[in-house]
Amino acid sequence: MPVPDIHPTLSPAEVRLLCRENKFQEPTTASYCDGYVQANLVILSEKYAEDFRIFCARNPVSCPLIGETYPGDPRVPEHLATNCDIRTDLPRYNIYRDGKYVETKSNIEKEWKSDSVAFLIGCSYSFEAALCTNGLIPRHIELGRNVAMYRTQVPLMPAGVFSGRMIVSMRPYPLEAIDSVRAITRPYVRAHGEPVAWGANGARALGIDDVAGLRPDHGDPSDIRAGEVPVYWGCGVTPQQVVIDSGIPGVVMSHAPGHMLVLDQLISDVCRFD
Amino acid sequence: MPVPDIHPTLSPAEVRLLCRENKFQEPTTASYCDGYVQANLVILSEKYAEDFRIFCARNPVSCPLIGETYPGDPRVPEHLATNCDIRTDLPRYNIYRDGKYVETKSNIEKEWKSDSVAFLIGCSYSFEAALCTNGLIPRHIELGRNVAMYRTQVPLMPAGVFSGRMIVSMRPYPLEAIDSVRAITRPYVRAHGEPVAWGANGARALGIDDVAGLRPDHGDPSDIRAGEVPVYWGCGVTPQQVVIDSGIPGVVMSHAPGHMLVLDQLISDVCRFD
Repeated sequence: MPVPDIHPTLSPAEVRLLCRENKFQEPTTASYCDGYVQANLVILSEKYAEDFRIFCARNPVSCPLIGETYPGDPRVPEHLATNCDIRTDLPRYNIYRDGKYVETKSNIEKEWKSDSVAFLIGCSYSFEAALCTNGLIPRHIELGRNVAMYRTQVPLMPAGVFSGRMIVSMRPYPLEAIDSVRAITRPYVRAHGEPVAWGANGARALGIDDVAGLRPDHGDPSDIRAGEVPVYWGCGVTPQQVVIDSGIPGVVMSHAPGHMLVLDQLISDVCRFD
Repeated sequence: MPVPDIHPTLSPAEVRLLCRENKFQEPTTASYCDGYVQANLVILSEKYAEDFRIFCARNPVSCPLIGETYPGDPRVPEHLATNCDIRTDLPRYNIYRDGKYVETKSNIEKEWKSDSVAFLIGCSYSFEAALCTNGLIPRHIELGRNVAMYRTQVPLMPAGVFSGRMIVSMRPYPLEAIDSVRAITRPYVRAHGEPVAWGANGARALGIDDVAGLRPDHGDPSDIRAGEVPVYWGCGVTPQQVVIDSGIPGVVMSHAPGHMLVLDQLISDVCRFD
């Protein structure tokens, strides 16, 4: 049931409580809790956890690991989010069985098992806030759309049962803004950081044909205007897709697109080198 | 002047002292100090250090950063090597100016500047020792050759002034040994870890045509025998080549191929997850 008085100034703990009580019915967490880290979620059986941990370590641009839970323990580490239950404190979860989508639910208390491990992975919302602050508003935010995402031909570094190819998000910028866009997003190392490629040459290096931004593989089409080029970043859909495609038997869970976990950590705390 | 009584059982400190006194004239450090970490070396001006640090963080399979010196201070951190001067304690150094090779020297005391920063990067010798221990002796060691290396089409994740494509090393193994080879090298996360690709499909994903291993871009040809496939790993030549190719003005230095810095750290200490 929608709650009309939900306001972007809610604290992360307030958003999580609304989720837990099943009262957060907004289409996305994106516009909430400005300045706080939001995380992608992947939940796996403990037996694949070490492979996934190494996979993230080998592919930090696509899979920037922020933290994880102990096996079977649904509590998120306190330094990331106080009093947070990973089974209830996101708005929506996607459930997959044997690599196939099964359903979307608002909590996963029944699906969580004694060997479940939850991985929290950095999200582009962190660097998008910095782009907005610097007057470089991503086109999809201006248009009220989802970001355009592409499958690439770039192989990820395999680890155990996990392998795949990089997925990227695309935001158009004028060629003369590339240096600024790179510098602004560079520090957000646990949120994909600076772009991985840009322009027609960049698209070619990634193996993307649709340089015009009109036929993305995921998300919505973009609108690339005169003087602008496509700019590509690592994307948190990558680890989710890799895990779904990996062929591991049984249940895998993730957040539903746009329905992230809002952490208590400030973006400035966790997304820069120390 | 060659020293006939140099012996593989020398300690890392003894090898470094021989280097400092210009008495280590062997063709490589590879067969010395079994069980100890050896490191690739890249020396840059401080003004490019932060970009390089981020470049390594974004490409940990190719560029596993083990440690670095303070700007202008030639002492290697004590926890890596005791009483170690980066300007003298490797057998040989390559010197590049404005991206062009200039000369090979046995010490770089004259070239080291007040803004020089030395980066130490993990090396495949660490996981090769583990392969040998497990009876999976790399072919180039059996043949007494240098490992075969290939330029790939896989773009690295750019960071500031640094970008490029991945270089890989290749060792042939029987198809049925791939699982063992992956499992044995997986833990050596700061020494390139498990393979990035293998077999004809792997070669294709990397953009390598010479699946037979006969025409490598660097190093020596291999000898792939019946039932074997090429297995590709991240390679420490990558960061060196990226820095040389980056077009940054002035002097860049590295170890000469095969002439690594021998650290006091045990492979088991630094090349596994903690």
